[in-house]
Amino acid sequence: MTIGFELIKSDAKSHARRGRLATPHGVVETPAFMPVGTAATVKAVKPDDLTNIRTQILLANTYHLFLRPGHEIVREAGGLHTFMHWDGPILTDSGGFQVFSLGHINQISEEGVSFRSHIDGSPLLLTPEKSMEIQEALGADIIMAFDECTDYPADHAYTREALLRTGRWLERCAAAHKATDRQGLFGIMQGGMYPDLRKESAQIITQMDLPGYAIGGLSVGEPKEVMYEILDGCTDLLPENKPRYLMGVGSPDAILEGVARGIDMFDCVLPTREARHGSVMTSSGPINIKNAQYTRDFSPLDAECDCYTCRNFSRAYLRHLCKAGEILSAMLLSIHNIRFLLKLTEEIRAAIEAGDFGDYRREFFAKYYKTIVE
Amino acid sequence: MTIGFELIKSDAKSHARRGRLATPHGVVETPAFMPVGTAATVKAVKPDDLTNIRTQILLANTYHLFLRPGHEIVREAGGLHTFMHWDGPILTDSGGFQVFSLGHINQISEEGVSFRSHIDGSPLLLTPEKSMEIQEALGADIIMAFDECTDYPADHAYTREALLRTGRWLERCAAAHKATDRQGLFGIMQGGMYPDLRKESAQIITQMDLPGYAIGGLSVGEPKEVMYEILDGCTDLLPENKPRYLMGVGSPDAILEGVARGIDMFDCVLPTREARHGSVMTSSGPINIKNAQYTRDFSPLDAECDCYTCRNFSRAYLRHLCKAGEILSAMLLSIHNIRFLLKLTEEIRAAIEAGDFGDYRREFFAKYYKTIVE
Repeated sequence: MTIGFELIKSDAKSHARRGRLATPHGVVETPAFMPVGTAATVKAVKPDDLTNIRTQILLANTYHLFLRPGHEIVREAGGLHTFMHWDGPILTDSGGFQVFSLGHINQISEEGVSFRSHIDGSPLLLTPEKSMEIQEALGADIIMAFDECTDYPADHAYTREALLRTGRWLERCAAAHKATDRQGLFGIMQGGMYPDLRKESAQIITQMDLPGYAIGGLSVGEPKEVMYEILDGCTDLLPENKPRYLMGVGSPDAILEGVARGIDMFDCVLPTREARHGSVMTSSGPINIKNAQYTRDFSPLDAECDCYTCRNFSRAYLRHLCKAGEILSAMLLSIHNIRFLLKLTEEIRAAIEAGDFGDYRREFFAKYYKTIVE
Repeated sequence: MTIGFELIKSDAKSHARRGRLATPHGVVETPAFMPVGTAATVKAVKPDDLTNIRTQILLANTYHLFLRPGHEIVREAGGLHTFMHWDGPILTDSGGFQVFSLGHINQISEEGVSFRSHIDGSPLLLTPEKSMEIQEALGADIIMAFDECTDYPADHAYTREALLRTGRWLERCAAAHKATDRQGLFGIMQGGMYPDLRKESAQIITQMDLPGYAIGGLSVGEPKEVMYEILDGCTDLLPENKPRYLMGVGSPDAILEGVARGIDMFDCVLPTREARHGSVMTSSGPINIKNAQYTRDFSPLDAECDCYTCRNFSRAYLRHLCKAGEILSAMLLSIHNIRFLLKLTEEIRAAIEAGDFGDYRREFFAKYYKTIVE
């Protein structure tokens, strides 16, 4: 199989698992966090800097690359790996989520979704077949099925309609997927906030033997407790011997809670988006570097961090850059924030291996969120 | 002496010189180009990337750092070298030029210049003594005298008044300059576009035995031929055994013409400013990467360049980033443009050493500007 998954260790007291995902461009140790390179670039971070902070795998967005520069150009460039100079594993989403969140939708039909580009207003159509064509041109190691992600809140009837359509679209994706020798197709579970619909969606997508399964339609506006409750019932519905990917989730608490519930893969724009606004994750909790209290703080962002930013610059300097609107601020804070989540997953992996995941999770919450969890 | 200068070789057919400038933070081979780090950061380039492209010395702006974050904070940080994590030589300008170009001037008096901050409108006063105090706090290896840079055009009478004041201010700078063990003070020649005034200014500033001399008040809006004509008469007015710095100049042609006239040091925001607009210098001439002709151009920006950008990315990718407004575009193009000017000065140094400067200059113009020079 193009994509392999090996389960190395399961936690005794939670659903946390330590695994290893094999892709054509290398191995990904799981649980893993995937930085997001929307338009074939992780915003404000060079590929060599991503390697230096031990990034394992990147995510890129089909919708954005379809619109600009166009998948044919990426194909001619030799695929996304060559185009963006990233030789490690890449996952592309299907464009589904972005069509629904960014595009101006004209019509959702059985065929697909017709919409207008958020860049130039041009009319476009995405279908399961088109998504496969684009993702094949992009050439990522892992590609995602074209799905309909329902809003929050959405009623039961519509949510069911959407998950059933997502199931039919998955069959069309699998039929249209040609580059099976170099790309693995993951299916996406929908079903919104309805446990019965999550179950129905899981039954549909797991009827097909795919190399991995994702949980979509969470972190779409619902309270976190609702997300965790739904997640509680979700992971058991998916095969144990396949990787499980929780789409669009990447806050430290959601990563820990996701891992505890059996999730192996995460992605989120949070570390880079927050960095551009001066918001920083540190081992003793989140801070905003623009705060006046850092004016004369010559200590590193996070004394426990090993990233380029923390090894070489002070909070006072980073605050200055941020206040002055300097690009270097976004660069240095993005490096740190991504490294923070990568380090979190490294520590989670070590804790699962050592049988200490429960303690690690409790200690992290106490230190980062100043919160005691059960 | 804190700043040493050794003349290694002089060109037989021009005034070009190959030299070596010794500073407390290391040696600078001349002719040298100094990238500009206005607010204690070369815009969009990390210090390690500056080292990778063989940057020798950086320039930082006293005016900007005085306003934000304030020189006292930089002093508390341990000086600019520590604050911005640059362990090589640094030169700071005096703030004079920026006060005149960016500040809202209230009054120029014998004491100094009172102005309002371009950031928050607060009333401020810069004097020769204040400039020395700020530059001592910043802690650069080379500091510049506080001068009055006249506009173009300016009449003879006012230009003379300004250069005489600049002469008196230089004496006050020298008297106020305390950290002579770790900082060298350069004087600045003014005199606008008047050869007689350039001569008078040179006589005044060279009466003091300073470790280096700069030519100010050029590239302020005058035609390039006028600048070269003035420059023709300028360098001979300065001591042969001291470095000569042409302030604010950094286009490839001006560097070559400056070197031919005996200039050793250059600085300019051009490579980084142009990069942020997609303008790129290449060995076969300038291009704008946003141009549609690069949509499917999978060759490097400049096949003759050894920088990170040219080794790893295509024009098509860089165009995509630029069109998409991605920060990575400014980062990668800035690295290249700075490297282009550093490489130009490396080649100039090699050509002077080999006795080929005249040929190098002619060939560069033919290739870059498609122009034949005498």
